[in-house]
Amino acid sequence: MSNTNIMLMGMQNLSYDYSSLSRKYKDFINISPIQTGAVLPDESKKALDEFAIGYAPYNLAQGIEIMDIEIVKEFIYKDLPGFLGSDIARITFGARDGIYTAMRLAAKPHDTVLVDENRHYTTVLAAEKAGLNIIEAKSTGYPDYTIDADEYISLMEKHKPSLAILTYPDGNYGNLPDAKTIGEAAKENNVPFLLNCAYSIGRMPISLKRLNADFVIGSGHKSMASIGPVGVIGASEKWSEKMLKKSKYYEKNELEFLGSEIRGSSFITLMASFPYLVRRINEWDKEVAKARWFSKSLEMLGLLQLGEKPHRHDLMKFKTDIFYEISKIHPKKRTFLYEELKKNRITGIQQGRTKNIKLSTYGIEKESLKKVIEAFEKIVDTY
Amino acid sequence: MSNTNIMLMGMQNLSYDYSSLSRKYKDFINISPIQTGAVLPDESKKALDEFAIGYAPYNLAQGIEIMDIEIVKEFIYKDLPGFLGSDIARITFGARDGIYTAMRLAAKPHDTVLVDENRHYTTVLAAEKAGLNIIEAKSTGYPDYTIDADEYISLMEKHKPSLAILTYPDGNYGNLPDAKTIGEAAKENNVPFLLNCAYSIGRMPISLKRLNADFVIGSGHKSMASIGPVGVIGASEKWSEKMLKKSKYYEKNELEFLGSEIRGSSFITLMASFPYLVRRINEWDKEVAKARWFSKSLEMLGLLQLGEKPHRHDLMKFKTDIFYEISKIHPKKRTFLYEELKKNRITGIQQGRTKNIKLSTYGIEKESLKKVIEAFEKIVDTY
Repeated sequence: MSNTNIMLMGMQNLSYDYSSLSRKYKDFINISPIQTGAVLPDESKKALDEFAIGYAPYNLAQGIEIMDIEIVKEFIYKDLPGFLGSDIARITFGARDGIYTAMRLAAKPHDTVLVDENRHYTTVLAAEKAGLNIIEAKSTGYPDYTIDADEYISLMEKHKPSLAILTYPDGNYGNLPDAKTIGEAAKENNVPFLLNCAYSIGRMPISLKRLNADFVIGSGHKSMASIGPVGVIGASEKWSEKMLKKSKYYEKNELEFLGSEIRGSSFITLMASFPYLVRRINEWDKEVAKARWFSKSLEMLGLLQLGEKPHRHDLMKFKTDIFYEISKIHPKKRTFLYEELKKNRITGIQQGRTKNIKLSTYGIEKESLKKVIEAFEKIVDTY
Repeated sequence: MSNTNIMLMGMQNLSYDYSSLSRKYKDFINISPIQTGAVLPDESKKALDEFAIGYAPYNLAQGIEIMDIEIVKEFIYKDLPGFLGSDIARITFGARDGIYTAMRLAAKPHDTVLVDENRHYTTVLAAEKAGLNIIEAKSTGYPDYTIDADEYISLMEKHKPSLAILTYPDGNYGNLPDAKTIGEAAKENNVPFLLNCAYSIGRMPISLKRLNADFVIGSGHKSMASIGPVGVIGASEKWSEKMLKKSKYYEKNELEFLGSEIRGSSFITLMASFPYLVRRINEWDKEVAKARWFSKSLEMLGLLQLGEKPHRHDLMKFKTDIFYEISKIHPKKRTFLYEELKKNRITGIQQGRTKNIKLSTYGIEKESLKKVIEAFEKIVDTY
């Protein structure tokens, strides 16, 4: 039924009482790859509460009422590029938005972009939306699924794409391809090079310059301890003119970002979390060691870690034949694993998955991870 | 100094301790036109706290872990279109993003769009970014600055733009042009018609169908009691195929929104505030009456309300010759008004303005508005 006559007929009837939204599995151990890097530190929760009013997107050109604009300028013009190892940086609405922005800057409709097979599906969507042709560098397939630098480079040399995009790491296997070597080749071939660091910026040290990239993009709500939607894009100096181009009508306002470099309360949390991010990326070695220990523990139960080994990231995919076999006889069928983990107050595995599972150990205490291992062990032992 | 070697040199030095951000003038009476419609009700603050984890943008196609996906589907597919009087609706990153989306859907580069002179500057930026030519329907100028429907329609008939955009109301004078009549003419001339309702959707009842529009866009962080960035776009059925087109590579995912129809914690607050919005738009008459009373009170002090009279919106601009005269002799010069109001615990007037000021009375108790009037009176009397 349509509600177009709300003014005449009185109040709209709603399907649901949205005013009492609550989050499920809030106190569970959360091993979801898209959430472990996004847990807010206390200072960021405090800032979120402080700025819980709508109009927090503002504009570097006009200044803002509720915060000292100089703080924001320091962040955007100095500290954020410093963090990314880039010459310039801006705020986006997330990784996919950043990728779409870089595509718009580097390519025009009907141009070709090179992507790796492990790319996020939204990289393909962004290319399609931008009207671009896509060349794909295949992975080596089972069981490592690595992106071979030579293979990638030879496609780059052959097709001379308007933009070469490398996922670093990818969101399936957590593989870290040889970005630096590919970046060098991109430079030699004069091919603009974009690193999708949605799962690395904010988790591990990343430097655009060191990796020879033209663009790096990051995700606030995936790996930078921020609420969504927010992301970052860093670029090298040579993109400055194009990326920061001002409107011909409004000379103070940047066209690409529609005049608003700073975007909402999610940006507030990104900024408030920033000192914490600067500290935590230095703990990356410990996170990798923990991921390896976890991987080894699961493999001892008969699961097989896919992707690079030894692994260099907290995001991992496991081949779980045992769970698939159990699912065939279990009354709950394909959802049994999800349900069994829930009983153990563990969340983050995609519902209905049993042949393979994706998870992340990032930022989770070893004690909690032990509980996860025990839960898996119990499931394996019971059936 | 560059920080590209953070890994080798230890931790990055920051310009500012971002971890202790606090909001200025938090307990002041806030008459900022971009903030009065964006104050969060308690239930929304609660939801924000509940979902203060990064990865709250998810995807209708894939389902979500932390909330029942059916709730979100009801909202996007039924209750939101019901609220907008539209056939379909989607979530955007804000008004400017919604306008840019509609431009992309209705026009191709080098096409022409018609805008009204009272349009927000980002409407021009979006057109420029989309590569469009701009025709502008002039306002009647001082003191009413109205957009004449006949004038607008004759330009529409003459230029047959790919999209006609009307600001309803505008953010300078709070004028509400005759959208319905213009919409009828747009239909007759087969010109797609977009209403920028950044200052109306969520404040007053708006119906796409009743106003004969093809698109309506709204702003969560301006008028829908949400944190930013978030907005809405409603469209008529005939845009369904184009707006909701699926990717040719990923058949479940909508291309225009890069696969993510639902966007972040700001969306959570929009949804949590929704029942409140449904109630409050029915109080619109009271808000208009209050705005008129406020306007009359300021005019009695010698200020002149610009824009439509009697006014039909809470957003108002006043010509303030007295304040300009005072600024010439006041030691604080152009910032005196801002500073004087601050002394009275009032915020929201743009710093440095004295010739004219913009403000909003929306959602502010009459008792608080009396304090604002008294503060203005005191300033006028003292000098």
